[in-house]
Amino acid sequence: MNLQEATELVRGRLEGDPTFEIRGLNTLFDAKPHELIFLFDARRLDEVKISSALAVVLPRGVECAGKHQVWVSDPREAYRILALSFTSASLPAEGVEPSARVHPSARLGPGVAVGAMVYIGEGAVIGSGTVIYPQSYVGEHVVLGEHCIVYPSAIIRERCRLGKKVIVHSGAVIGSDGFGYERNGDRYEKIPHVGCVEVGDEVEIGANTTIDRGTVGATRIGRGTKIDNLVMIAHNVIIGCNVVIAGQSGIAGSSSVGDAVMMGGQSGVKDHTTVGKNVIMTGRAGVANNIPDGLMVSGFPAQEHRKEMRERVLVRKLPEIWQGLRRIQQRISGK
Amino acid sequence: MNLQEATELVRGRLEGDPTFEIRGLNTLFDAKPHELIFLFDARRLDEVKISSALAVVLPRGVECAGKHQVWVSDPREAYRILALSFTSASLPAEGVEPSARVHPSARLGPGVAVGAMVYIGEGAVIGSGTVIYPQSYVGEHVVLGEHCIVYPSAIIRERCRLGKKVIVHSGAVIGSDGFGYERNGDRYEKIPHVGCVEVGDEVEIGANTTIDRGTVGATRIGRGTKIDNLVMIAHNVIIGCNVVIAGQSGIAGSSSVGDAVMMGGQSGVKDHTTVGKNVIMTGRAGVANNIPDGLMVSGFPAQEHRKEMRERVLVRKLPEIWQGLRRIQQRISGK
Amino acid sequence: MNLQEATELVRGRLEGDPTFEIRGLNTLFDAKPHELIFLFDARRLDEVKISSALAVVLPRGVECAGKHQVWVSDPREAYRILALSFTSASLPAEGVEPSARVHPSARLGPGVAVGAMVYIGEGAVIGSGTVIYPQSYVGEHVVLGEHCIVYPSAIIRERCRLGKKVIVHSGAVIGSDGFGYERNGDRYEKIPHVGCVEVGDEVEIGANTTIDRGTVGATRIGRGTKIDNLVMIAHNVIIGCNVVIAGQSGIAGSSSVGDAVMMGGQSGVKDHTTVGKNVIMTGRAGVANNIPDGLMVSGFPAQEHRKEMRERVLVRKLPEIWQGLRRIQQRISGK
Repeated sequence: MNLQEATELVRGRLEGDPTFEIRGLNTLFDAKPHELIFLFDARRLDEVKISSALAVVLPRGVECAGKHQVWVSDPREAYRILALSFTSASLPAEGVEPSARVHPSARLGPGVAVGAMVYIGEGAVIGSGTVIYPQSYVGEHVVLGEHCIVYPSAIIRERCRLGKKVIVHSGAVIGSDGFGYERNGDRYEKIPHVGCVEVGDEVEIGANTTIDRGTVGATRIGRGTKIDNLVMIAHNVIIGCNVVIAGQSGIAGSSSVGDAVMMGGQSGVKDHTTVGKNVIMTGRAGVANNIPDGLMVSGFPAQEHRKEMRERVLVRKLPEIWQGLRRIQQRISGK
Repeated sequence: MNLQEATELVRGRLEGDPTFEIRGLNTLFDAKPHELIFLFDARRLDEVKISSALAVVLPRGVECAGKHQVWVSDPREAYRILALSFTSASLPAEGVEPSARVHPSARLGPGVAVGAMVYIGEGAVIGSGTVIYPQSYVGEHVVLGEHCIVYPSAIIRERCRLGKKVIVHSGAVIGSDGFGYERNGDRYEKIPHVGCVEVGDEVEIGANTTIDRGTVGATRIGRGTKIDNLVMIAHNVIIGCNVVIAGQSGIAGSSSVGDAVMMGGQSGVKDHTTVGKNVIMTGRAGVANNIPDGLMVSGFPAQEHRKEMRERVLVRKLPEIWQGLRRIQQRISGK
Repeated sequence: MNLQEATELVRGRLEGDPTFEIRGLNTLFDAKPHELIFLFDARRLDEVKISSALAVVLPRGVECAGKHQVWVSDPREAYRILALSFTSASLPAEGVEPSARVHPSARLGPGVAVGAMVYIGEGAVIGSGTVIYPQSYVGEHVVLGEHCIVYPSAIIRERCRLGKKVIVHSGAVIGSDGFGYERNGDRYEKIPHVGCVEVGDEVEIGANTTIDRGTVGATRIGRGTKIDNLVMIAHNVIIGCNVVIAGQSGIAGSSSVGDAVMMGGQSGVKDHTTVGKNVIMTGRAGVANNIPDGLMVSGFPAQEHRKEMRERVLVRKLPEIWQGLRRIQQRISGK
């Protein structure tokens, strides 16, 4: 791609050589001469100036003489658009790689790509344009919508249903059995899990995340929800739309999380608990009771963020409280 | 299956059409007409009445006119029995799928099913009736007992030994090296791990859970223990029988956990620590010292649950304590 | 191996039968007669005496009559050396197993072993002596240094670069997309990740650990760093050399961790945060602000360990504080 083409893609204004070749995108520090850099934060202009990159995308009104300059209204959006042009190199080829094992009854839409050593079970349905990287598993009667991406070694077990444009990262397991047992004296007897997992359109599921199937009925992830790595979602959890769940968080069985909730890293939700819409859980928040819509919560057990912050300040003051109390006690007993 | 057959399986009493066809089990809300529903909680009888399902399993003494009714003494047990009939569809066929790589020296018992692209190493022994789903790895000299289930892409490394009826979920790793190094100046030198993992009968190991092999000797999981997803069990840990470990919990090196312990989600045990029998660790409990038999512990560092609850109440009262102290100090200094 | 050979390997002094056969190493308790045991802690001499093992490695100056004895200056170092001789049995054979899929453009150094059903993408470069176990994935243009070990079912995605003698355990995912989105009204639009992961020499990466690629630029792991299981390292994190990260810890996006840091189990670092060199984070420490070099920190939000310990003591005293305050208030109001 040359600079003229890049400028047109991001609807920018170019001052410099339109034929200058762009070979990739990179950070200010690491960029080589033909890699494009971006000024996201005006305070880093000095770093732009000393970067080895010869071309830069800038917000309007900022100057960086000596480099090819592309001005845009929103450098982050410009980055997003250009990055899409530099990431699509590694798709498996359209069709079924010979080493894949695809059951004859599976139905593959037009343009589907099935990589090496993929397994696709009986009756699975794969929507058009969906890409399945090597070594992944798609169980029997799984439904994958159009234009999904399943990265290497992802596991989608039997009868789970994913919408359109879903992305499943490597090592993610969708549809493992829920963790449910009947106690029988000392022993635990497994409760069979006959449910499934239903995932809405445009959901992204991180590497090594696990989503258990429902005991009966479905575990459900709403449209547009984004789930990071190593997250655990238990059986029969219901997650709304456009929820964001950061790494290593967990949601225990039969809980529900409303639309547009944000869960910080290493946070958790107890079983059979309801988290309302638009709730913000900060990092490590551990929800143990129902949370109403719109609240920001922190701590464990999680409470209103403002109260938690007040408490943390006072815990830090415990040495002062202890001393104060001692002094008063001495004064009183000294009388 | 028809309703007469279902009724006989659960030893129930039927009022309705014995030839009515049952196609699956489902929740009150999601069920279609030919899916069977269960009333576990009498307060939900109204939801049973408006469910689309035409047949219901009820506890004795509860009526739901207008549906085919099957009365049983324990609806949960009835569910368990019937669910087993509706989950066994997806087993790999008996024998070795041609794309699997099985070492000629491996010994497979009668009725073993080895799925596509499975790897089985030299000298492995697979007990009769055991099912290994596609893409799993069974290392050299591994011993799997009878009637185990190994789900897709599970990893069992060399020389680990699993008992009968063990279930290993997708992405679980059994027998990875323990995390042990000798410090040598600034650097760390790996301590080789020559031990293994020994897993008792009827253990279940969740998706993406990891169990490290012993440095020397074995990491041991006792009979009947159930382990959820994304749990980390370190080298030389000894876990008793009928222990239940919920998701994202961790047990550090050389610790032991007694029989019938219950570990809540996201809980943890420090290295070289002993948790006694019948201990209950609530969610997020972090055990940093030995815990005697039978105690219920919470918090971090974990202490007796009752004390932790008392403390949490008082932490919530810190603003009141702070104000009270301030008022007294002002009063005293005002004199 | 016989006892004479073992003694020479560890440069010890033998009293006993030089032809005595050693079949493995084991713990004091579990050892069989022909397994070698080690006395690491002099207080356990009584256990050595009653062990079934017939040969023991001892520190100089300690006697254990009745067994074949090998005296060394450092039994742990002796263990490390001997264990290396008892763990190398299970390597895949040199060359490419026929079921592996290796792109014709990939370059494999001398002595490389590629196991069954491995995938190696276009333009990948594998250094001499590197061993790739079955079912692993090496994406296009990945660079693996010399003498690396990639255990079964590890995933290394496109363009990631690993140094020499790196060990990647089963289920680890290197180079998954970072968790980054642009908000657009209610919806989130994926930010493409065009960066990569760069891993230094002698790094070890635990089972089911995930390391995301940089948004632009690289996520970097310094030479000699050791990472345990189920750890989450987010996009553009920079980790120094000889860092030790225990299980289930997480480091959020764009944070940096200095050389020789030690992170305890289940610990965490917030995004865009700097942890200085030689910092010690105890188990479950949650760093939410920059930490200067050399500090030991605990708790959440993490603070200096000494302060955290003082606070924990005072939180335990809250019932006493509450009672003391009540008594003073009653006394004052009683006047």
